[in-house]
Amino acid sequence: MMDIARLAGVSAATVSRALNGSPLINAETRQRIVELANSLNYSINASAKRLRQGYNKTIGVVIPYQRKTRQHISDPFFLGMLGTLADALTDRGHDMLLSRVDTERLEDLAEIYSTGRASAVAVIGQWGQHDPLNALAVRGVPFVVWGAHLPNQLYCTVGTDNARGGRIATEHLLALGRRRLAFMGDIHMPEAAQRYEGHCDALRDAGLEPDPALLIPTSFKGDDAQLAMRKFLARRKRIDGLFAASDLIALNAMGVLMAQGQRVPQDVSVVGYDDIEAASYGHLPLTTVRQPLDLAGREMVDCLLQAAQGQRPASRVLETTLQARASTAPLDP
Amino acid sequence: MMDIARLAGVSAATVSRALNGSPLINAETRQRIVELANSLNYSINASAKRLRQGYNKTIGVVIPYQRKTRQHISDPFFLGMLGTLADALTDRGHDMLLSRVDTERLEDLAEIYSTGRASAVAVIGQWGQHDPLNALAVRGVPFVVWGAHLPNQLYCTVGTDNARGGRIATEHLLALGRRRLAFMGDIHMPEAAQRYEGHCDALRDAGLEPDPALLIPTSFKGDDAQLAMRKFLARRKRIDGLFAASDLIALNAMGVLMAQGQRVPQDVSVVGYDDIEAASYGHLPLTTVRQPLDLAGREMVDCLLQAAQGQRPASRVLETTLQARASTAPLDP
Repeated sequence: MMDIARLAGVSAATVSRALNGSPLINAETRQRIVELANSLNYSINASAKRLRQGYNKTIGVVIPYQRKTRQHISDPFFLGMLGTLADALTDRGHDMLLSRVDTERLEDLAEIYSTGRASAVAVIGQWGQHDPLNALAVRGVPFVVWGAHLPNQLYCTVGTDNARGGRIATEHLLALGRRRLAFMGDIHMPEAAQRYEGHCDALRDAGLEPDPALLIPTSFKGDDAQLAMRKFLARRKRIDGLFAASDLIALNAMGVLMAQGQRVPQDVSVVGYDDIEAASYGHLPLTTVRQPLDLAGREMVDCLLQAAQGQRPASRVLETTLQARASTAPLDP
Repeated sequence: MMDIARLAGVSAATVSRALNGSPLINAETRQRIVELANSLNYSINASAKRLRQGYNKTIGVVIPYQRKTRQHISDPFFLGMLGTLADALTDRGHDMLLSRVDTERLEDLAEIYSTGRASAVAVIGQWGQHDPLNALAVRGVPFVVWGAHLPNQLYCTVGTDNARGGRIATEHLLALGRRRLAFMGDIHMPEAAQRYEGHCDALRDAGLEPDPALLIPTSFKGDDAQLAMRKFLARRKRIDGLFAASDLIALNAMGVLMAQGQRVPQDVSVVGYDDIEAASYGHLPLTTVRQPLDLAGREMVDCLLQAAQGQRPASRVLETTLQARASTAPLDP
């Protein structure tokens, strides 16, 4: 309050009266002080704020990225999450404003709210930034995190019971008679850590001690998972079951296992986590006409930014190429 | 500058002088104004600037929906397109505002621009609304469509050469000795129509007449494609090749073919269109711990709208279930 007073060039008493709606303060001064307090992220009651700027029927969605891995937004789980959020927001008459924020600067997400561009912000994943998220909650920024429920949490999370998920996945493998079980994932991420914890609990309940050599570290990226599985197989550790922290990790690891002559599910049974679309059907690699999606985004954005400047961009037709895979073969004579 | 002046309770000239270090302004006032300018940097500048210049670093993305099929946004091609657009927009320092619009009321997309919420709008697909899109272009709404390049088009499109794509897919099947080729897709949609046209051209060039009985109509939805393939197989028409208007159609049709005892690729070779992520790897249906994604979106939005009203929603932990599929099996004794 002292800060507001100093910056507004008035006394603390005036600020207090203004924020309490005292008739002693004229409308212009009051407006000025409320706006100032709001811009500086001092918590102000929500109805006053809405009175001022009106309610914006837009919800921000932030997908944080780590500077080093820079997980692509095209990750199937992120996309599934965007899809379900977009559908649910449409049903409730809201639009979705999508942004990416560096995990090291998660506090930037407050701007999406404080600038009035969105009325609340969804954050996909905690990314090990529990403390900065707590700090944002103290500042009164309205946000909700998809992620793990953690001790001493001041913010709202929605997520699954990861430890229980890890337990049921592992119990399923144990019930199939499998005993040498590997886990794939990055246990520095809260959700993966809880899934691993449930995995270890189930092993111990079955009288087995978790073997650190069977913990295969990998990020959530598909190519990282392939590399991790190749490295693991090179060490010639025998496993008969695999529980992966995500379906994308599981599908990529399964590809490597099969390519190296292991039979799935007989030699190694594989369990994922998520149930993304692609998990539900099995298929051969598909021969297809490739639309260059990466190029598509860049070309579209190029045209859009031209259009936004009042120019009339020319249409563009992108080349297609045939991607021949296992779903096509010569006809037997 | 007007904003700072207003909030500091001084004139714009005073702010200007203070920021330029004029000796006419006393130290205390200058300090106050500099601090204010710093503290407010983004929040006020950005919105004020936007009002003045009318440029908002946000691009709208509209995924139209048909009232009757209401194709879910979670369609893998839509999601791939959203991902590539979001990544390209991030690279260019823009956010993305996602909305859905009824195909029968595509003109509503003009509002996203006219209300200043976005500086230009991307539209995913034409949805047979060529004329309304032309009308929007005449009104000067800045938008770009992902879709087919059509005759008499007043708006900008980005898309692939669909006729050529259809031709190379079909030529690939013909080169493999296959002659009884089916096409799956909705030829009332411009892109699918052009792919079918290229398919027919390739057949005619090979001296074959396209057989209307081998045109299998289906929407772009996976379950529609499964149903269409089941109906087609019930008619006992023999085919040795299939070209589908999208990968999702192809993957679903392949599942039905294999479930009904047809060998892919030997009996029926299958070609898709798009090259979505899942097309690149083959795999078994995956046993997984299901996160209820549909529920996830609704629960998140519920919490977000509470938070947007100034409430503090409680965290929610969603149930997981084990989805057993072909990737796990009992260990051989």
